[in-house]
Amino acid sequence: MESKSLELWFEFGSTYSHIAAQLIEAAAAQRGVEVRWIPFLLGPIFRSQGWNDSPFNIYPAKGAYMWRDMERECARHGIPFRRPSQFPRNGLTAARIVAAAAREAWVPAFVRGVYLANFTDDRDIASTAVLGELLEAAGCPAPAAALERAGAPEAKQRLRDHTDSAIARGIFGAPTFCVGDELFWGSDRMEQALALAAESARDGA
Amino acid sequence: MESKSLELWFEFGSTYSHIAAQLIEAAAAQRGVEVRWIPFLLGPIFRSQGWNDSPFNIYPAKGAYMWRDMERECARHGIPFRRPSQFPRNGLTAARIVAAAAREAWVPAFVRGVYLANFTDDRDIASTAVLGELLEAAGCPAPAAALERAGAPEAKQRLRDHTDSAIARGIFGAPTFCVGDELFWGSDRMEQALALAAESARDGA
Repeated sequence: MESKSLELWFEFGSTYSHIAAQLIEAAAAQRGVEVRWIPFLLGPIFRSQGWNDSPFNIYPAKGAYMWRDMERECARHGIPFRRPSQFPRNGLTAARIVAAAAREAWVPAFVRGVYLANFTDDRDIASTAVLGELLEAAGCPAPAAALERAGAPEAKQRLRDHTDSAIARGIFGAPTFCVGDELFWGSDRMEQALALAAESARDGA
Repeated sequence: MESKSLELWFEFGSTYSHIAAQLIEAAAAQRGVEVRWIPFLLGPIFRSQGWNDSPFNIYPAKGAYMWRDMERECARHGIPFRRPSQFPRNGLTAARIVAAAAREAWVPAFVRGVYLANFTDDRDIASTAVLGELLEAAGCPAPAAALERAGAPEAKQRLRDHTDSAIARGIFGAPTFCVGDELFWGSDRMEQALALAAESARDGA
């Protein structure tokens, strides 16, 4: 039988990725679906569309709506949320840490921790001190080594490769769930993506 | 007891408004919520953001995703859907017909009919012949008079007023559900909007 899996493509600056990151593991486990966590950067994608900032900052009505919608959606799902004093925060180092770590066991807890630091505790997720603390809290056995690896050319290249792959696959925002060639954009498409992942594995059994 | 009501702000060119239009009445009736149908134009809103076309045409990855997502979402809800040969179609006259008609009984059926004509039957909803036929099918007692009213200055001004009100309320896309001051953007927020409408009326009872 084929394994059931789903890719979660996320960007640390993205608000709705916070919701997906907090919910995905429990929801996937219920359906027996394995989650692959893939960090990428929205900056290059947005710049190729002529945006030099988050669309939520460029288009004020959309931004005002998003902050209110995040409050409601997080409340509905029982996810803590507080609008941060800076948006978007620079998630480059955090993304490189995850890109370098690939599938190490502490990755999901670290990703959730980074989102909570940014979108609940209003902490600076670009700070290596903050990231070191979050790595430790997530159970990473060697936080200093994980941070060092994130600064190496291999980690930088891997993250660039992820972003290039995202563009090649037609990803234009975050979070995006990928099941085979099907894309599902936005935290509110998580259930549909999981249903397809579970079904695809059954059909392929 | 206060009446339970929700406003559906829609634009005839908008794909996801098709989903909302087809689903809203049955879903609202289940909760005892009254629907107010408010047509507006996205063109002036998009132009104020520097867009002279649908963002789904300007940003190809987003557009490709939307057409696939529409197929999936319509299939999930049992709504017929076929990608039209022209997008977006000009819904100006249709919107003026609804703006002029206000709350006449045939309005919901006419709105649904226009969306089905565009997004299922690939018909030109800018054509007065098509619109006349759709008015008749919706039970409008005097299609010719409804079309004539749509061309009068009052109808044009009413639609402009709707669009101005949409901007003033922070609406930036369609469909948008309004419950008091709360906005819910996108067909996938319909249930949350209906739940709030039902709850607000209970609290105000």
